[in-house]
Amino acid sequence: MSIITLTIQCPDQKGIIADVTQFIYSNKGNILYIDQYVDRENKAFFMRLESEFISKENAISTFHLSFEKGPAKKYNMKWSLFQKEQKRRMALFVSKYDHCLYDLLGRFKSGELDVEIPFIYSNHPDLKHIADSFGIQFYHFPVSKSNKFEAEDFQLNLLKKYNISFIVLARYMQIISSKLIKEYTNSIINIHHSFLPAFPGAKPYHSAFERGVKIIGATSHYVTDELDGGPIIEQDVSHVSHSHSIDHLLSIGRDLEKIVLSRAVKNHINHKVMVYKNKTIIFS
Amino acid sequence: MSIITLTIQCPDQKGIIADVTQFIYSNKGNILYIDQYVDRENKAFFMRLESEFISKENAISTFHLSFEKGPAKKYNMKWSLFQKEQKRRMALFVSKYDHCLYDLLGRFKSGELDVEIPFIYSNHPDLKHIADSFGIQFYHFPVSKSNKFEAEDFQLNLLKKYNISFIVLARYMQIISSKLIKEYTNSIINIHHSFLPAFPGAKPYHSAFERGVKIIGATSHYVTDELDGGPIIEQDVSHVSHSHSIDHLLSIGRDLEKIVLSRAVKNHINHKVMVYKNKTIIFS
Amino acid sequence: MSIITLTIQCPDQKGIIADVTQFIYSNKGNILYIDQYVDRENKAFFMRLESEFISKENAISTFHLSFEKGPAKKYNMKWSLFQKEQKRRMALFVSKYDHCLYDLLGRFKSGELDVEIPFIYSNHPDLKHIADSFGIQFYHFPVSKSNKFEAEDFQLNLLKKYNISFIVLARYMQIISSKLIKEYTNSIINIHHSFLPAFPGAKPYHSAFERGVKIIGATSHYVTDELDGGPIIEQDVSHVSHSHSIDHLLSIGRDLEKIVLSRAVKNHINHKVMVYKNKTIIFS
Amino acid sequence: MSIITLTIQCPDQKGIIADVTQFIYSNKGNILYIDQYVDRENKAFFMRLESEFISKENAISTFHLSFEKGPAKKYNMKWSLFQKEQKRRMALFVSKYDHCLYDLLGRFKSGELDVEIPFIYSNHPDLKHIADSFGIQFYHFPVSKSNKFEAEDFQLNLLKKYNISFIVLARYMQIISSKLIKEYTNSIINIHHSFLPAFPGAKPYHSAFERGVKIIGATSHYVTDELDGGPIIEQDVSHVSHSHSIDHLLSIGRDLEKIVLSRAVKNHINHKVMVYKNKTIIFS
Repeated sequence: MSIITLTIQCPDQKGIIADVTQFIYSNKGNILYIDQYVDRENKAFFMRLESEFISKENAISTFHLSFEKGPAKKYNMKWSLFQKEQKRRMALFVSKYDHCLYDLLGRFKSGELDVEIPFIYSNHPDLKHIADSFGIQFYHFPVSKSNKFEAEDFQLNLLKKYNISFIVLARYMQIISSKLIKEYTNSIINIHHSFLPAFPGAKPYHSAFERGVKIIGATSHYVTDELDGGPIIEQDVSHVSHSHSIDHLLSIGRDLEKIVLSRAVKNHINHKVMVYKNKTIIFS
Repeated sequence: MSIITLTIQCPDQKGIIADVTQFIYSNKGNILYIDQYVDRENKAFFMRLESEFISKENAISTFHLSFEKGPAKKYNMKWSLFQKEQKRRMALFVSKYDHCLYDLLGRFKSGELDVEIPFIYSNHPDLKHIADSFGIQFYHFPVSKSNKFEAEDFQLNLLKKYNISFIVLARYMQIISSKLIKEYTNSIINIHHSFLPAFPGAKPYHSAFERGVKIIGATSHYVTDELDGGPIIEQDVSHVSHSHSIDHLLSIGRDLEKIVLSRAVKNHINHKVMVYKNKTIIFS
Repeated sequence: MSIITLTIQCPDQKGIIADVTQFIYSNKGNILYIDQYVDRENKAFFMRLESEFISKENAISTFHLSFEKGPAKKYNMKWSLFQKEQKRRMALFVSKYDHCLYDLLGRFKSGELDVEIPFIYSNHPDLKHIADSFGIQFYHFPVSKSNKFEAEDFQLNLLKKYNISFIVLARYMQIISSKLIKEYTNSIINIHHSFLPAFPGAKPYHSAFERGVKIIGATSHYVTDELDGGPIIEQDVSHVSHSHSIDHLLSIGRDLEKIVLSRAVKNHINHKVMVYKNKTIIFS
Repeated sequence: MSIITLTIQCPDQKGIIADVTQFIYSNKGNILYIDQYVDRENKAFFMRLESEFISKENAISTFHLSFEKGPAKKYNMKWSLFQKEQKRRMALFVSKYDHCLYDLLGRFKSGELDVEIPFIYSNHPDLKHIADSFGIQFYHFPVSKSNKFEAEDFQLNLLKKYNISFIVLARYMQIISSKLIKEYTNSIINIHHSFLPAFPGAKPYHSAFERGVKIIGATSHYVTDELDGGPIIEQDVSHVSHSHSIDHLLSIGRDLEKIVLSRAVKNHINHKVMVYKNKTIIFS
């Protein structure tokens, strides 16, 4: 028995759901879960479907081929098929802050995150001990103005070597290069420590303090070439008051960052995020 | 053009989604929205589907007949079909508290609630002026131990006369009779002023104060013969502290009650609630 | 018996609390509630104190005089004294949206807001019927580019005639003139339909939809000459998803606006808001 | 310079605040923060005060003596004085779940918790590796029906040996003995995985699933002899839906438990919790 997830994006037309579900059914699949969304303004159709098949591996490749020739061609689909047993490979990029790293690794160990984590990369050596205590390979390569191409090469080689599917920036404090972003389109997840679009850029908690806001937030988004401007995956906030110093805000913020980043990562892992025109569709 | 909502409940089997969507498609329908849920423990299947048809009224009755003979029979479905243009009729029962009544009528006036409200019934005359200011018929019939059968008759006659689809108890402070509950199974929506199952029965805010809880809540549920034991539709809470007196709790609670009841009513109106084994499935 | 609220702002120094509480005590007052805050960065001290006196009216004026000569002079205080029995007078400014107006009037009627509401002013005639149904005077004076000085005069005359203490803009859709802002510094409460500083200006829900945010919010603030830039009193947010249309956002936003504005108004009425350097201190 | 926190509980009377603040002032103290609460129903007064003194250690003991003879005697106070530099000693009790342990130790390492953690105790050996990786002593002593007095002795000896101030049960799955509860009155902090008083006892997530609630919660409270009946320190909830399996609830619950327990522990560490009649006053 094999469980697959199918994600589909195409121009909206009549009959798509009927055709796809009929296709699954006639290929001996049982639909476990179906969710769909139509962006009426842009006449775009999105679907996520989980199905189980009583089949062997080669049956999947047959499915692949006939789906491509059938519904995919008919409706001009962009589509992906994921098999549950083939875990994706996630790289973690960190700098000096440890709270998001601890949080993700704790969830990984408890079985919440259905991935492999081949390595942790950092531009600082500080968090190596955490990687060690969880038995994960740690790579350190400093990043500075003078060596940014060497650093980029180092990162790209690592990602290729370990066949990485997506990258999580767990409070990684460096700009990601355009080349990496291009190679990993909608596959680099960042956590920004404000409720975007408020307070983009550096030191958002300081800006929040300065403005006297009564809520602070965190935002997880895919990295694009526009700083803090990529498609938003998840956001959350906490109430604060005049009595909170910047240190308090940083402390409350750490809890928000952990929660928001982990939710975004889980949605990404479970193929629940689709991106269209710099916005996300998040299936439930 | 006509928009319908179809809700389906049946034993879980392979092929249901494929067959239903194929049926819609071959009847010239375009699926606008589909959501489904499988209760794996009980092997029960639930679906909600919105579809538009380019058809006249009699086409709908044809659809009705052929769906009953086709998919409905094949999969042993309990199913309902609602037409968007046929508004359902909602009765409001109140006593002396006015906050939920004001809130619902405000939403009704602003177009948030797609229903008709033929009348407001109360066991007290106090809120007649609100009914008047919104131009809705108000009926007053007192309820006491000695006249409860007369009151029940009065209510049943009203409900029949106005062809009422469902009843909202907007802080109505009387027990609903078994006969009414039977006539309106899963169609009487109550708001209870605690996060059930904590603090059922009378004076929940007083009990919450006594226990020293740090959150208070409200719960909207369908009325069953078990007091405050019916299927829960919606719940929400607010944080409170030691400094809140019972009066503060009552005031915070009023906001909760309004929000929670109105969300439940909207979900009911939009056919997003299905009931199974004293629990609800709420489609999004 | 008389209950007073005292609010104090002065440079931070040792001994203030001791001196003030000793002053209250030696004037036969019993402190019911005390809260204080020190802005350490700016070395500024803030205090709010409720006290009851077994005294007649003239005792209060004695208190006033001796406090001014005593602690107030010693510590160079800006201070205010409010008597509970002297209700303040609140003006409501509205345009065409009715949800905040209904909400505030509902709370007013239920006794939640300890003020007088002498009149409702609008630049449109649409909401007169609501004012009528609550028995409150309604004034209509249109505002356009050509008559803005006449409109300002009309507003100022009304405010003076009715001896208004503060103004609530319950979705009033016009810019307030500098002259009014100057006359009512930190006394004009606005509700903006976004979590500021994100999405200032017009049509924030449209911008939120465009950006694809996962939370929307509302902000209540005092009006200053900088549009949507005044001291923030209260903020709250709701989670939203890709499936929410702009209409959904508007509907969810209405609930936020009501809750946020009413909380801000209650804090203002209870003298719990102090303003310093374009930020608020909100006592609990 | 020395910073102290003073907590006071006594019958409500006039003049307490004036006398205490005057006392601090005349002893060369500068009040940094004052918060007070009056339980009017029970005529009970509570105060928490932070003050800095330009003084040496022996000045504190002088303060101690003269406060006891002065305000404490006059108003019949129960009071405590804590010096910021004297860190309290916290013991962690765990069983097999690691999420709360990881969370607390992560916060401890980042400097959020101003305590010492001399040891972690468990009735199972499973989590020793975590204690090791954080460099904290780990003690394992199994607990069963037949050895519960030996286990109690083992625990009491450890607590005495390490001079422990308070105990945190980070998902410790055993009943605490009456003897321990008596020795550590209002000093044993538990996390219960439901919003009490709903779902006390074992398997609350299963009960929540069964009842079909739309929110689940967690509650941190002091341990008393009544199971899950002690004074509540902190509570929080998350929204859930019909689509969440028990495993989902457990996963969402883990996040709640971490947040709620850590907030309770921080409040306890900062002397912000006072207990009266099985309820807590939590100063802000």
